[in-house]
This record gives sequence, structure tokens and C-alpha cells, in this order.
Amino acid sequence: MKLATYKNGSRDGRLLVVSRDLTRAVDAAAVAPTMQQLIEDWAARAPRLQALSDRLNAGPVVGEFAFDPAMCLSPLPRTHQFVDASAFLNHGHIMEEAYQLSVKKTPGIPVLVQRQSDDFWGPCDDYPLAEADNGDFEGEFAVIVDDTPMASSPEVCASKIRLVMILNDVSMRAHLFRELQMGFGFINAKPATVFGPVAVTPDELGEAWHADGRIHLNMNVSRNGEWFGHPNGREMDWSFGELLARLGLNRNLRAGTILGTGTVSNKAARAVGSACLAEKRALEKIETGDSTTTFLKLGDRLRFEAFGADGQSIFGAVDHRFVPFKSEQ
Amino acid sequence: MKLATYKNGSRDGRLLVVSRDLTRAVDAAAVAPTMQQLIEDWAARAPRLQALSDRLNAGPVVGEFAFDPAMCLSPLPRTHQFVDASAFLNHGHIMEEAYQLSVKKTPGIPVLVQRQSDDFWGPCDDYPLAEADNGDFEGEFAVIVDDTPMASSPEVCASKIRLVMILNDVSMRAHLFRELQMGFGFINAKPATVFGPVAVTPDELGEAWHADGRIHLNMNVSRNGEWFGHPNGREMDWSFGELLARLGLNRNLRAGTILGTGTVSNKAARAVGSACLAEKRALEKIETGDSTTTFLKLGDRLRFEAFGADGQSIFGAVDHRFVPFKSEQ
Repeated sequence: MKLATYKNGSRDGRLLVVSRDLTRAVDAAAVAPTMQQLIEDWAARAPRLQALSDRLNAGPVVGEFAFDPAMCLSPLPRTHQFVDASAFLNHGHIMEEAYQLSVKKTPGIPVLVQRQSDDFWGPCDDYPLAEADNGDFEGEFAVIVDDTPMASSPEVCASKIRLVMILNDVSMRAHLFRELQMGFGFINAKPATVFGPVAVTPDELGEAWHADGRIHLNMNVSRNGEWFGHPNGREMDWSFGELLARLGLNRNLRAGTILGTGTVSNKAARAVGSACLAEKRALEKIETGDSTTTFLKLGDRLRFEAFGADGQSIFGAVDHRFVPFKSEQ
Repeated sequence: MKLATYKNGSRDGRLLVVSRDLTRAVDAAAVAPTMQQLIEDWAARAPRLQALSDRLNAGPVVGEFAFDPAMCLSPLPRTHQFVDASAFLNHGHIMEEAYQLSVKKTPGIPVLVQRQSDDFWGPCDDYPLAEADNGDFEGEFAVIVDDTPMASSPEVCASKIRLVMILNDVSMRAHLFRELQMGFGFINAKPATVFGPVAVTPDELGEAWHADGRIHLNMNVSRNGEWFGHPNGREMDWSFGELLARLGLNRNLRAGTILGTGTVSNKAARAVGSACLAEKRALEKIETGDSTTTFLKLGDRLRFEAFGADGQSIFGAVDHRFVPFKSEQ
């Protein structure tokens, strides 16, 4: 099934079931008013929403309406834990080569970054950019998990994945390089994150939800209507189960925990493109000694989307413009 | 006023108003069933709870009962953002000297660490330790803030502080050194955090809630009934307002955001003691070349508490034992 959260003036919005073709929706309130309530009580409520989804995909249902992604908050508008991985080592290798970084990784241990989860941004909302000279995007996949006890195996962790999303992990590169060198993770490097309008159960991905614990889909990224890249999720160096097991090594993961993949990156980046500006700039620097691609400019419009084998958009699109920040003060 | 959250089988527990002397409590459900609901609607609900608190402190009220910290969850059992600072530079200096660390700080920019907030541990609950050779504690103060718009000034940020708490920031030092060198912040270094049983409005601190934006209270730490340290919060190198302003430089902070101070540390550490094992071990190493204080042992009992000028415990105590972790699998 496919789920979205509409704006209704509240912090958590109202949960919708969306048709597979993303054209129609119906309110989920009778089963679960919000995504948070659903994810906390998945076993009891998800089957009833699945039945509603089946009816919606079969034909007209009472109360259905046209689905409008511009009305959406993030599918889970806020949550209690968001962790982003850097699960495509290829991206790190390119960055380290271009900028002579020496990240002291431990072989076998994935990079995971604890992130803020109090204020996700809507998928089609104008995005206020506080600094217009070092902003970047990162196209990623993510999963939402159910309660997962401390020290669970990768197999148990994988069995706790309930929903899949896409996201633009907006990044400020000047802060990122500074904070990475300091060692304590990202604060000013990562303003609000933007998830795609629709979260889907893994079965909606068909064979692209692969037995190897990875998502075999292209992440299609365009900037101002022009192709930027379409790297595929299959090259993740760890499976979702492995990433979650490392995260939960000595702590419980509570229902609603979101795990992102990190920017999707392929070894054939020169052919398939990148999912972030920094990687493209790094490739340019490696090849010519200089980067010509610019960081985000005010007015830039970005689109992130993934399509199934049948050509259907799976999650809808993150489709947003970057605008000047205006202080409320 | 003083507030606590009792266990009731739910994820968010039930909110209580607690008497100033921490002996009596009354249910807050008629005003706000949970701390999350209170903090999201502070302006409307806090005055009514304050009135209830005033009545409770004046004499018997209908429905009051004896307050038992062992029945408590964290005052805010989970939230949407927890950030811990390292606001006592003295602690960092000691660690860097002892272990020849070279943390690349930028002058004027405080260290802030994004942390998980999905699974706080109860203040008196046995704490399961997955590894018994590198566990540590950190005695800290923390504040809970209301909605704070992006790019607010330190003064505006300070005005959004609603509640004050204490905490034990449980830390795994072997992971911490590894993760600090990698640069992406803390994951396995920081299992569940343990807040004291009672959150209080700043006025409950009297003059210890100082005009300089710091908490002028001793953090009293004991290990197995023996004094370990009582460093004072007044030596914070940034005020709470300054820390929050840096955190919110390019993003909104949403109601319920918790900001911790980092381990309390004083220049007179040799006299007043430390609030964590690592600092004491570092001081031993600097002085003798070796550390004799051991990391946490199974069965260790820790207590963290702060007292007002009148000798009254302000927040109650984090008072817990470290026990072997038993897998649920």
C-alpha cells in the first residue's frame, strides 16, 4: 500500500491511503489518524489499511478524492529518530580523492549519522535557504522501522522494515567539511530534510525490493528540468538489515525510526550521473583540477523520483524550489 | 513548578505535578495527559498546571499521592530532537591533553552533537550494559525548549526555555574514540540516555538560574555510595541561549527539543571532582601516566543530584544500577 500525510494545520497532519497510480486518495482516519499512530500499532492497524488500499486500487471508494502532492507533509512529518547512513562507499571514495580527506573508517563498520527529526519539510514546499553559496542536495532512499530490540540480528532488523521512502537530504557543504573535521557529526551541515510525498510498503517495489536487502531502483534527479543523474540503489555496500543491526548494537530502535541510505552513488558515476552536487563537483575536480558545477542557487528547482519496471512513479516526487530565507523575527 | 511522568504502560506515560519537596504528586491529566502535549501547547496549558502546583505546595489537594521516583519514566520519555553540547571546554582540554587528541574546533563555535531521542531510560531503572569494559557516565544539565524559529537570536532562544532537567549521558568510550576519529558523530558511543525524574521550570532554581544563561548548581555524582565529584554548572563556556542559537542557525527547533550541556567540568577538577570517569582517568593519566579508576562495572550504582541553597533536591536523583544485558531474541 501507499500512504501520505496531508497538511491539516496540526504537527502530525492526517494520514491518507493513496492509489498505486498516485491519482486518488482516501482518508485513513478510521484506522489511524496519523502515520505515527499507525507505525506504533502496525500489526493491528496495517491489515485494515491494506484492505482499504486494495479496495481503492480496485475501483471507486466512498470519500475518495484527487491526490495532490503539494498538499503533503512528509509521510511521517516528524519522528523520534532519524539516522542517515553513508552506505555507498563509492561516494566517499570520490570525495576523499577530490579533497584529500582522510576519513578514519573501520573496515566492516558502516558510517551512520544521527540526525534531527523534529522538523521535516514538505515535498513540494518552497525551501528557505539561509546561505546561497554552499547548499547541496542528496538523493536517497530510506526505510521506516517498527520497534526493534537492542542487539537484533540483520535478519531480525530487516523483518522490522515497514515502509520505504525517498528523500532529498539538503546539505550545507561549508558547514559539512568543518563539522566532519571536528568529529562530532552534523549540526549546521544539515538543515531540514525533505522526504517524498508517498511512503510505500516494500511489496510495492516488486522485485526492486531485492532479496539482498537493497533497493534496485534508479534515483532520478533533475535540476531546473535538466537531467542530473540516475544512479541505482543496488550498489549499497551494506544491506538495510546490516545497517540497522549496527545502529541497534547497544540500544533499542523504537517504532518510527527512519534510516536513510546516504546519497545514491554508482561506480559508473561518469555515465549515470550523481545524486548530489558535491560528487559531481568532486569528479570535475579530479578530472580537470576545478569544479564548474555550482552549488544551489536561489530559484533552483529540484526533482527526485523513482519509477517501477512498469514506468509508474513509486513514491511521487520531491519537487521543490529553493527560495531566500526570511526571518520571522 | 515541578513535573514528572509516571509509567502507565504507554510510550509517553502520564504527566504529574510534583510538590517542591518531591514527596507528593497529583495527576496532570485534566490539563495535559503527557509532557509532549504540554510542551506543544505551553502557553495555554502551563498556567493551569502552575495553579495546580501552587495548590499542591500550599496544602493537601484532592487525588494527591506519595511521589515515588522509581515509578518514573524520563519527564519527556521520548522526543523529536535531543542535542548534547560539549559546553565545558575544560573537559575537552583535559581529554585532549591526556590522549593527544587533536579536535579541530573553530573558535567561537560550540560543539553540538545530534543524539537519538526515541528511547530514554527511566531514572531508577536497572540499566543493561552490553559491554562491561568501557562504559562511562556523564552528569549534565539540560533544558527543554518551545518552538523556536530558525535564526533566532540567543536572547530569543533563551526566552523559549521552558524546563530544566539533569541527566546521566551514558557513554561507551571505546566506541566514542573510534567514532570521534571517523568524524560523523556518535552512534554506538551513546546508548540510551537517562534523565532525572523531575523536570522543573527555571524559577524553581531561584538565583541558581543565573542571568548569565547558566545553571549555578553543583552536579553531585556518587559511585556505589562514595563521592565522585560535584563540579558546578557556572563554568559553561557558552550560555544556553548561545548554544540554542547556533543549533538553530539554519533550521527551526520544534517544541520538545532537549539541549544538554555536556559533562559538567570545572577548572578545579582535582579539588571538586569530575562528573564522568573518562575525565578522572584522564587526570590520572596526565599526573601518573596511568589510569587507575575503572570504567563501569556490572553492579555499579550511580547517583546524580543537584540541591538548592535550602538543601532541597531540585530534580530528584538519577539513581540506577548497571546490570548485564539479556537479549530478547
